[in-house]
Amino acid sequence: MERNPIPKATWGRLPLYLQYLRTRLPLQGKMISAAAIARDLSLGDVQVRKDLALVSGAGKPKVGYVAEQLIRNIENCLGCNQITPAVLVGAGKLGCALLDYGGFEAYGVRIVAGFDCSERVIREEHTNKAILPMERLTPFCRENRIRLGIITVGQDSAQIVCDRMVQSGVTAIWNFAPCRLTIPPGVLLKQENLALSLAYLKNQLYQ
Amino acid sequence: MERNPIPKATWGRLPLYLQYLRTRLPLQGKMISAAAIARDLSLGDVQVRKDLALVSGAGKPKVGYVAEQLIRNIENCLGCNQITPAVLVGAGKLGCALLDYGGFEAYGVRIVAGFDCSERVIREEHTNKAILPMERLTPFCRENRIRLGIITVGQDSAQIVCDRMVQSGVTAIWNFAPCRLTIPPGVLLKQENLALSLAYLKNQLYQ
Repeated sequence: MERNPIPKATWGRLPLYLQYLRTRLPLQGKMISAAAIARDLSLGDVQVRKDLALVSGAGKPKVGYVAEQLIRNIENCLGCNQITPAVLVGAGKLGCALLDYGGFEAYGVRIVAGFDCSERVIREEHTNKAILPMERLTPFCRENRIRLGIITVGQDSAQIVCDRMVQSGVTAIWNFAPCRLTIPPGVLLKQENLALSLAYLKNQLYQ
Repeated sequence: MERNPIPKATWGRLPLYLQYLRTRLPLQGKMISAAAIARDLSLGDVQVRKDLALVSGAGKPKVGYVAEQLIRNIENCLGCNQITPAVLVGAGKLGCALLDYGGFEAYGVRIVAGFDCSERVIREEHTNKAILPMERLTPFCRENRIRLGIITVGQDSAQIVCDRMVQSGVTAIWNFAPCRLTIPPGVLLKQENLALSLAYLKNQLYQ
C-alpha cells in the first residue's frame, strides 16, 4: 500500500473531510474550495488548505478542487478501497453494537467475525454477523490472515484475549476494556475509553 | 464546583491516573511516586510529576504521595463525587450498550434514562434502565434539570433529536451519529467517531 508522508494530525482530519464531502452529494462535476470546507467544518483556512494540498495537490485558484476527484484522493490515501478484515472478541451489548455498526467499511475496515466464550451468546446471535466460539479464534485468524483485533470483553479477561489475539497473528488491537494491556514490541494498541469523552464533556459544563 | 486552572492535556490524563490508582487497591496507607506511575503507564516522568503537582501539590521527596489522598484529590478535581445526570436518545444496540455501561459513574456521570421513538424498543427493554417514549424527553429533562445529552440515533434523525434536546435545556451533547450537528452558541458538542479510531489503527498497520 503506497503512502504519502502525511502528518498524524492531517491523517486524523482526513476522515472528517471525507465524511463531509460524501454527505454533500450530488457533487457530480462540482468544485469545492478549501475555504468552504474550512467554514463548514469550523476549521482553520490555512490548515485545510495544507491538508488538501498533501492529498490532492494544489487546488485551482478561486475555485478549489473537483469534488469527486478530491473524494477519490482522500479514499486512496486512507486506503478505503482496500478492505482490511478484523475480528472482535466479546459479543456483549457493546460488541454486538460494533459488529452491526455500518460505519467502519467507509474507512476500509470490515469486522468479519465475532467470538465469545459464552454459549448462550453464540446461540442467541443478536447480530447479523457470525459469532463463533473462542476455540475458533486462532484457526480463523490464521486462515484469514487477520491482523486487526477488537476487544470488548470485561477487564478481567481482556489480557487473556489480547494474548490469544497476538498468538493468532493479530498485530493491531483496539481495546475497549477499561484496563492497560501488556503487549509485545511491534504490536499496536489503541485504548478506547468511552467514559473519558463523557467525563470531558461534563467537566466543560462546569468551566 | 471549584476548579483549578488545569490544562486540557493534564485533564485528559487524570482519568487514566485515577483508573490506575483505583485498580491498585488495597492502597491503604501506601505511598505512590510519580516515577512509579509514569513507569507503569508508559508516560514521561516529568509530565506525570507536573500533572500530579497541579492536582495534589508536591509529593514527599523520594516517596511521593499518600495514594488514598491522591485518589481523593483527583476525584475532586474531576468532580467524580458530584454525579451529573444525562439522558440518551436512541435505544438501538449502541444506545443500550451505553445505557448499561458501568464505567461512566466512576467519572461522575449517570445516564438516568433512555428515550426512543420506536414502541418496539420501549416494550422489549434490552437494558436495565428505563426507556421512555420521545414525547417524555422534554418534561423529563426539565423536571430533572438535565444538561447532558447523548445521541445514538441514525444520522437522519440526529439533528431533530439535537434540537429537541437543546429546547429541553440540554447544553452539552455527545453525538455518535456520523454527521455534523448545528447547535446554537453556548451549547457544547463532542462528536464521537468510532470508525475514526479503527481507521487510524488500520492505517498504522501499513506504515
